[in-house]
Amino acid sequence: MEAVVMAAAKTLPISSLKCGATKSATTASQKKTLSLSSCSVRQAPDFLRDLSVTVAGGRNVKSSRKLQVTAAVAEDRRIEQESMLSEKPATLLRDGQDAEDKNGLRARFEQMVFRIQNEVCAAVEAVDGGKFREDAWSRPGGGGGVSRVLQGGNVWEKAGVNVSVVYGSMPPEAYRAATGSATKKPGRIPFFASGVSSVMHPKNPFAPTLHFNYRYFETDAPEGVEGAPRAWWFGGGTDFTPSYLFEEDVKYFHQTQKNACDKYDPAFYPKFKKWCDDYFLIKHRGERRGLGGIFFDDLNDRDPNELLAFATECADSVIPGYIPIIEKRKDMPFTQEHKDWQQLRRGRYVEFNLVYDRGTTFGLQTGGRIESILMSLPLTARWEYDHQPEEGTEEWKLLDACRNPREWL
Amino acid sequence: MEAVVMAAAKTLPISSLKCGATKSATTASQKKTLSLSSCSVRQAPDFLRDLSVTVAGGRNVKSSRKLQVTAAVAEDRRIEQESMLSEKPATLLRDGQDAEDKNGLRARFEQMVFRIQNEVCAAVEAVDGGKFREDAWSRPGGGGGVSRVLQGGNVWEKAGVNVSVVYGSMPPEAYRAATGSATKKPGRIPFFASGVSSVMHPKNPFAPTLHFNYRYFETDAPEGVEGAPRAWWFGGGTDFTPSYLFEEDVKYFHQTQKNACDKYDPAFYPKFKKWCDDYFLIKHRGERRGLGGIFFDDLNDRDPNELLAFATECADSVIPGYIPIIEKRKDMPFTQEHKDWQQLRRGRYVEFNLVYDRGTTFGLQTGGRIESILMSLPLTARWEYDHQPEEGTEEWKLLDACRNPREWL
Repeated sequence: MEAVVMAAAKTLPISSLKCGATKSATTASQKKTLSLSSCSVRQAPDFLRDLSVTVAGGRNVKSSRKLQVTAAVAEDRRIEQESMLSEKPATLLRDGQDAEDKNGLRARFEQMVFRIQNEVCAAVEAVDGGKFREDAWSRPGGGGGVSRVLQGGNVWEKAGVNVSVVYGSMPPEAYRAATGSATKKPGRIPFFASGVSSVMHPKNPFAPTLHFNYRYFETDAPEGVEGAPRAWWFGGGTDFTPSYLFEEDVKYFHQTQKNACDKYDPAFYPKFKKWCDDYFLIKHRGERRGLGGIFFDDLNDRDPNELLAFATECADSVIPGYIPIIEKRKDMPFTQEHKDWQQLRRGRYVEFNLVYDRGTTFGLQTGGRIESILMSLPLTARWEYDHQPEEGTEEWKLLDACRNPREWL
Repeated sequence: MEAVVMAAAKTLPISSLKCGATKSATTASQKKTLSLSSCSVRQAPDFLRDLSVTVAGGRNVKSSRKLQVTAAVAEDRRIEQESMLSEKPATLLRDGQDAEDKNGLRARFEQMVFRIQNEVCAAVEAVDGGKFREDAWSRPGGGGGVSRVLQGGNVWEKAGVNVSVVYGSMPPEAYRAATGSATKKPGRIPFFASGVSSVMHPKNPFAPTLHFNYRYFETDAPEGVEGAPRAWWFGGGTDFTPSYLFEEDVKYFHQTQKNACDKYDPAFYPKFKKWCDDYFLIKHRGERRGLGGIFFDDLNDRDPNELLAFATECADSVIPGYIPIIEKRKDMPFTQEHKDWQQLRRGRYVEFNLVYDRGTTFGLQTGGRIESILMSLPLTARWEYDHQPEEGTEEWKLLDACRNPREWL
């Protein structure tokens, strides 16, 4: 029966953080300690940095018997209800060691994402003239988030920049004693995740949407198992989604991302550009949601300080990579037909985010803050039956580039 | 490794038919013959009428190794590419026994859903003044569909009524010899599915959206296993989704559904009304997408002729249950605020269909005709950050009814 329930329950990935959601993770060295009866692997070669855990609340739960079985798992993994705060706290880290260790990676990463949030919001406000609304929340067990949303602006119809910090833990069922000689049942495996996540949808159909997300994960040793290994990794990316193809914009944007990558490794841009094209595929359409950028995950094969610097470099490339394009396109005249096409592409954005995006789907099922998770959806979207742009038109050119990713540089 | 791949692959239900998609199924009596290593169960008590099969192409596939393993399964289950037809065929049934046996359930069900499609489209056209566009397609192995869509009408911004017939089969890996004495490896398990599916989104924010779907499933004996059992069942329902709550409309609609049910069993309406409330739950919101109706599945505990008559009665209740409400609401004056609220509710409709609806998610992953599957999405939808209707407003009243299902009769 267990196998049946396992297979029927949805499996969800945990390697990408959508702010407002939580994640579970396990360590690279716990390879032999995990019971696969309640875990599943998304990436075989490096699977312990990249593990999926079966989560209930999926689509297939129907019988009361299964509900009971899976509800227990869901209960185990559901994050605590957030409490709204009257103002943004200085840190979302837990009191004590995390908050006090100013030079620790957790603290330095959090300060970086807060700085990025401030700078991106300031840059957007400077162009738009509108102001971001801020919502901050915390959770009883530590962690929380700060969402900033600008809606109905002059340039952007909806722009959001979220920071969040999550303290979570894997259920003990996912874990077996580290060695055959272990006599004590291990406790849960605590993890830490922090990230910044942003989506910005402009009004003008010639101005592209931008998404970026940078995140840092750590797992502790399982409770009750002395000397067990820890793990950490970085992930993230920046990708952009125009409704119309201006080659100069695409080249400019990709060049800024390549420049950031090249400072650290000439192999990064080609690898992360392809990863981005692969990730943002709307499988049922056979097309990407946009024209890519960079995407990476599971980065932990260098000194963590170097990888923090790399993630910072990428995040710092958002403003110079995006704002100049917006400045160029935001006031271009357009017709209702242009607007309708933009709205159809926004529909594709919704399809990707609700059907495929791991952070979104995971967040929806684990009880993250819904409004922060779904902030990524556009203000408005459109679905026309069987819309097919005529070959050679500007709409077709964009679609062709979404279907057949190119090397832009 | 198999267990790992199994758990990581998405599992999808097969009991509900979205026209344009295909399904796999197996029979009630093959209980002991199925290898659970490639099947999973959605409903334990009656699980053989209601079986999920692991399907690849899910969100979690990433490693090349897993891609290889799951690609084989996907290949096995992906339905054949459709060919568009120049006109609607007289039948979508396979030449030979199916098409010739005019008194068989397959033929009678198909004729019923074609008649319903004609009658509903005619009723909608009579009110709207616009005309449905028709697209028909077939698949090399038999089956196909007829989609009718009215877009940009006077009363409805998008209305679609689809009929489809699917011949599919379960992969042999899902099957083990019917008895221990079987010496021959069984072949695939053929199945047949036919249904009508419709969603109609009006323009006026006071006029409700309607969805209905009626479907019939049969499975054959597995190839190469003589005397193995067959199975069949009916499923379907009609539910409606207003943006504003007019109690008289809700009562009227539910009464038409209850009347249809009561002709067959007084226990049907209470049971199927609750099933509908449970099914159309947007879990991450804690609210239903609308105000319900009826929903049932796995019906096979009566004479099939009686159940065909019941499904027919339900389908025949669509027009009298819906059109009078539309007539009453279609010309009511409204403001931009009313329209914006309707658009927010349309956003919820999109969330349900893309995240939870089994027919939609299954169809997207198995290669059904995308435009027919996604015909259910509204022409336009809207997502505002953290929109909270003020308590006591008309918008709040609707939301409250979506959060707390009531007995309307």
